Amino acid sequence: MYVKGVTKQSFRLLSDKASRFVPKTGVYPKGFSVGGIHCGVKKDGKSLDLALLKNDFGKEASAAAVFTTNKFKAAPVQVSAKLIKEKKGFGINSIIINSGNANAVTGARGLKDAEDMVVVTDSVLENPSNSTLVMSTGVIGNNLPIDNVLSGIPKLALSNLGNTHEHWIACATAICTTDTFPKLVTKQFQLNGNTYALAGLAKGAGMICPNMATLLGFFVTDAPVTPSALNQILKYSVDRSFNSISVDGDMSTNDTIVAIANGAAGGEVIDNTSSSAESFAILQQEITGFAQQLAQLVVRDGEGATKFINILVKDALSYKDAKTVASSVANSNLFKTAMYGKDANWGRILCAIGYSNVSTSESIIPSKTSVSFVPTDGSEELKLLVNGEPETVDEERASEILQHEDLDIVIDLGTGGGQQANFWTCDFSHEYVTINGDYRS
Amino acid sequence: MYVKGVTKQSFRLLSDKASRFVPKTGVYPKGFSVGGIHCGVKKDGKSLDLALLKNDFGKEASAAAVFTTNKFKAAPVQVSAKLIKEKKGFGINSIIINSGNANAVTGARGLKDAEDMVVVTDSVLENPSNSTLVMSTGVIGNNLPIDNVLSGIPKLALSNLGNTHEHWIACATAICTTDTFPKLVTKQFQLNGNTYALAGLAKGAGMICPNMATLLGFFVTDAPVTPSALNQILKYSVDRSFNSISVDGDMSTNDTIVAIANGAAGGEVIDNTSSSAESFAILQQEITGFAQQLAQLVVRDGEGATKFINILVKDALSYKDAKTVASSVANSNLFKTAMYGKDANWGRILCAIGYSNVSTSESIIPSKTSVSFVPTDGSEELKLLVNGEPETVDEERASEILQHEDLDIVIDLGTGGGQQANFWTCDFSHEYVTINGDYRS
Repeated sequence: MYVKGVTKQSFRLLSDKASRFVPKTGVYPKGFSVGGIHCGVKKDGKSLDLALLKNDFGKEASAAAVFTTNKFKAAPVQVSAKLIKEKKGFGINSIIINSGNANAVTGARGLKDAEDMVVVTDSVLENPSNSTLVMSTGVIGNNLPIDNVLSGIPKLALSNLGNTHEHWIACATAICTTDTFPKLVTKQFQLNGNTYALAGLAKGAGMICPNMATLLGFFVTDAPVTPSALNQILKYSVDRSFNSISVDGDMSTNDTIVAIANGAAGGEVIDNTSSSAESFAILQQEITGFAQQLAQLVVRDGEGATKFINILVKDALSYKDAKTVASSVANSNLFKTAMYGKDANWGRILCAIGYSNVSTSESIIPSKTSVSFVPTDGSEELKLLVNGEPETVDEERASEILQHEDLDIVIDLGTGGGQQANFWTCDFSHEYVTINGDYRS
Repeated sequence: MYVKGVTKQSFRLLSDKASRFVPKTGVYPKGFSVGGIHCGVKKDGKSLDLALLKNDFGKEASAAAVFTTNKFKAAPVQVSAKLIKEKKGFGINSIIINSGNANAVTGARGLKDAEDMVVVTDSVLENPSNSTLVMSTGVIGNNLPIDNVLSGIPKLALSNLGNTHEHWIACATAICTTDTFPKLVTKQFQLNGNTYALAGLAKGAGMICPNMATLLGFFVTDAPVTPSALNQILKYSVDRSFNSISVDGDMSTNDTIVAIANGAAGGEVIDNTSSSAESFAILQQEITGFAQQLAQLVVRDGEGATKFINILVKDALSYKDAKTVASSVANSNLFKTAMYGKDANWGRILCAIGYSNVSTSESIIPSKTSVSFVPTDGSEELKLLVNGEPETVDEERASEILQHEDLDIVIDLGTGGGQQANFWTCDFSHEYVTINGDYRS
């Protein structure tokens, strides 16, 4: 096993994907320490199931978060949302996360458990009170083995935190459930003559859908950003990343994405006022690209996924229309099973374009719609439909293109509106059914 | 093979389901003749692929139809919708249907082919022009082998029509694609001292979703009904039947449901004016129950389905809310795979209730929501969630209940609104993926 420090973690398909998508090294933001241990939520007695991130920089960090819109919000979502609102995004210095149990639909006892996780973490880290966000992921409807979690927190906080690559991998591993590899991305960028770092973690696999795609994700930076600017950037970037991916169309009770900026790398503070408009724009672009990279890993690891599909909808009347059409195709079971079967059944793409819930009667005009497969090896695109008329498709060529793991599908709506959106999805396989027919056992 | 007259038809899983759900006999409406032959669309050279229904009663029949809302409407949908609109529902005397090819996204040639099917049928049957509706079902994007279809029409119309049970079975069989059994339902009812008959046919299997559920369906009666009344009844009944089922959530380019009433059994004409309010109400109830029976057969035969699930949402603020919640659960892949795996994972039910797109913030209140499994063998219900608090579930009992093919799930929203809706769905199996990963070959 190549993942140092987490040799006890048994991934389901350990895995070609792990070796391709998990970094072997990384440059991490200054002033954070992280880690992951097994505390006793996961029943195998060894897999990592408790993760912690903490701001070590002397100053209070800025934070922003977006949460699931599901009506049945899990206890940790309720607690974290209340806390970040009360603090207006100032002084969130740590995140405590357990995997193996979602602490969702667990009534009053569940709320108390989530609150206790915050209290104990703040106490052990000697934070001011209410400085910690809490997240949980796993099965819905069972109470947490809270004693195991609460006694795990000091063990993790006092002896297992650090800022090495191995610590970040352990942290990313400890938030996984049915994931086949930990999702960790790092990046450096320049702004105003300073070098800043970004690190991002996510867990995904099941229940991945537009509108708060991954179960859990967070990214941290050592750039100095106001809570208001961070909040605006987070919403923009999540809309174009975690809310533009689909694995199975279901939205979970626990979905949470958090961004934390501690300013440890110094430089001028970035706000969303006109005075720092240029810096804001650059930071927004950096973070959006970064969030897309992280969100795409979630699709790569979609339950049972054998394909990674990028759907680009061009020349729509609006960004919203473009995204609606792309999402409709990305969520079509018939399209996704055809991709699994390497069947160039473009009729199913058309069909899903046609029933997408676009805003106006001019948004989709069959006689202006074109669809192509674009091979990811740089070879020529294969036109399937041009201005509503089907092309005579070279099935051999289509089949060749569909042998690749990666595929780009370009849908040109030809409205003259010029707006576009990307959406990332995976195929729908036998393995998905196997995993989800037997998740709890 | 037990289906007399269609011994050449090879169903995919011929089948326990066929022996349970295909009637051995029936009492059919007066004044209609029907039939089905192989004309040369399906490539095996023998399966029935052309069906015809014709009104033999001397008077012109009333007709009503609902069509797919997909933007890419197949050629036969465009032709039939235009025709029925122009005729205002009067004088539609026949329906011609081919299976094996959807004549969808086929451009100008496709429209001409659909029109030619109408012209040739009217001519052979000696109808006034524009008296025939046309439907097609099958693969999208290929032109019809139109010569085979057009030369099949006289063969079918002149030598293969009748009103026996065998003729109806042949007609129901000739509209099938991936269906594992033909869907045919008959019923008699009393109204104003007269006995009337209803016969209904449908084809389903793939692309079954709310909003025009089945690919094709039609029902005919010998009761006398005005086009306006028939139209109103059709819309009401389809909303509560074909638009309240889900197999895979995709909506096809070809979905069409047609109702035809020829009045051959005599009696007073039923209209939707106040003078025949009572008769109208009775007829609407009869037809709605009948349409539900037919629509449920489509779910029974969902691609790869091993379960039949009735979702009842009770005490909603509105019928629309109740249906929205039921539809959200019925379309959740995670719920459907759990049902396939016989896993009482009620968290996924909650989750899908929580992300359903209901109309107001009072429509779903977690602390008032209850969920139960109701066994279809009459034994006691199993409570999973009561007023938002999870019950301690007897997993053995849950597993026992999930062994049954049929399952009722009752979701009580507890809003005090008192409205309810039923929704029917199937599970999501390995077989679904197999069928749809390789549909075209």
